Amino acid sequence: MTILVNGEEGNRIDARDRGLQFGDGVFETLRLHGGVPQLWSRHWERLCLGLDRLGIPRVPERACLDDLSRVAAAPLSLAKLIVTRGVGPRGYAVPARVHPTRIVIGGDALSGEHDRPWLHIGVCGTRTGHNPLPGCKHLNRIENILARMEWGPDWDEGVMLDRNDHVVSGTQGNLLLLEGRTLVAPTVQEFGIAGTRRAWVMERAARAGLQVHEARVGLRRARDADAVFLSNSRIGLRPARWVGDHATLADPADGSESMALMLEIGHELNEMA
Amino acid sequence: MTILVNGEEGNRIDARDRGLQFGDGVFETLRLHGGVPQLWSRHWERLCLGLDRLGIPRVPERACLDDLSRVAAAPLSLAKLIVTRGVGPRGYAVPARVHPTRIVIGGDALSGEHDRPWLHIGVCGTRTGHNPLPGCKHLNRIENILARMEWGPDWDEGVMLDRNDHVVSGTQGNLLLLEGRTLVAPTVQEFGIAGTRRAWVMERAARAGLQVHEARVGLRRARDADAVFLSNSRIGLRPARWVGDHATLADPADGSESMALMLEIGHELNEMA
Repeated sequence: MTILVNGEEGNRIDARDRGLQFGDGVFETLRLHGGVPQLWSRHWERLCLGLDRLGIPRVPERACLDDLSRVAAAPLSLAKLIVTRGVGPRGYAVPARVHPTRIVIGGDALSGEHDRPWLHIGVCGTRTGHNPLPGCKHLNRIENILARMEWGPDWDEGVMLDRNDHVVSGTQGNLLLLEGRTLVAPTVQEFGIAGTRRAWVMERAARAGLQVHEARVGLRRARDADAVFLSNSRIGLRPARWVGDHATLADPADGSESMALMLEIGHELNEMA
Repeated sequence: MTILVNGEEGNRIDARDRGLQFGDGVFETLRLHGGVPQLWSRHWERLCLGLDRLGIPRVPERACLDDLSRVAAAPLSLAKLIVTRGVGPRGYAVPARVHPTRIVIGGDALSGEHDRPWLHIGVCGTRTGHNPLPGCKHLNRIENILARMEWGPDWDEGVMLDRNDHVVSGTQGNLLLLEGRTLVAPTVQEFGIAGTRRAWVMERAARAGLQVHEARVGLRRARDADAVFLSNSRIGLRPARWVGDHATLADPADGSESMALMLEIGHELNEMA
């Protein structure tokens, strides 16, 4: 596994880095095709949104792309890009001069193949609080860790709710619901993270003729949806079923026309350079 | 400045440390008197509460105390103790075998003297969300940073509210309010951090004859209190006034009997080994 810190190979960062001290930074998990990140412009836009909101100077886009091409370990692999506010003295106050730390970590090779047609999702008790940087993907992730710790042995993902029992997302990706010919995306305006695949799929599904909208969705409604999909940069777009739910289709490919369309979109996403 | 990572001198940690990746850890800021942390048992208890809640193995208490004695740079100084879940592979899932990272960072010498009688407090717009580990002091501190960025030029502290306009705390310490002979501590059951000095002062004030209780306190009520105090390990207990408020006493020592008692308690806290 290759790790680059500000473009230099090595896995060491300063213990006084504000990324460690406070989670003062943002990150992206990227799917690399031949060293090139898929949906880069969306990742870059979100990264910059977070940096701007935190008042951290933007790092050079070219340097990020160069780093990512260097850590790719396989034709298809994951990588993580982290940008922190860098080293600072004690205390929350932002230093007068900030030198951001750019960390790129190469990750697992991806096979692109699935061992089963459905992912299995349960429901976590850990609630998501308001995202202090709405829409952004920052380094404060204790809620996700607590929720991840709740997964049952046969879970592939856990759904996280807000304190009003509305569905927010999975612990490591977004949820999308199919209701007839409508694709419903639980809103992530105040909670959770606005996923890059989530946005891409919503746009793609709208172009393909589905009704697409965001909504506050209660757990009951999510369970009653005709189909549930999960999305993130690792899995792309995959159909899911609730743990213990044996009432739905044996195979997603036996579903409705809308279901077939969503599976097609997932396939397109996986193949897309 | 001395930094110890797992007892070894050096400022380098692994970029894959979950403290950096996710803020997956807890910390304490300690006031050292001759290398010995003040109110250690309270700090240790809170640290362990956080570790237990996160499922991170406890580090040896003796090692923490040894480290702290080694970083003390002056007879009176600050130090920070951080414990993370250590290095892990990609993803939120907790590794099967955890080797916590223990980081101790020596800090500023403290003079113990004050250049003015009051600290000045403003009100921040950044709201505190629910603490995912109630009562604990974890490494997810973006809210504090955003609030700290709001300070005006003449502020010594900024008050943070929850989304219902209740006072939670300062950005870097707790608030205590004096109403007649009653000391009111804004509740930190769901939001904010339960400060070690806050708890000590509440107990001490009760023994000294004040009525002491926790309450949900609106901003209006806080502004109308006879006096406001701030507490944390750096400042101990200090009287404060609202920025722009010229109506209150010229000097806290001219206040009521309860005010005098609180100033005495603050003095006692500062002197305490």
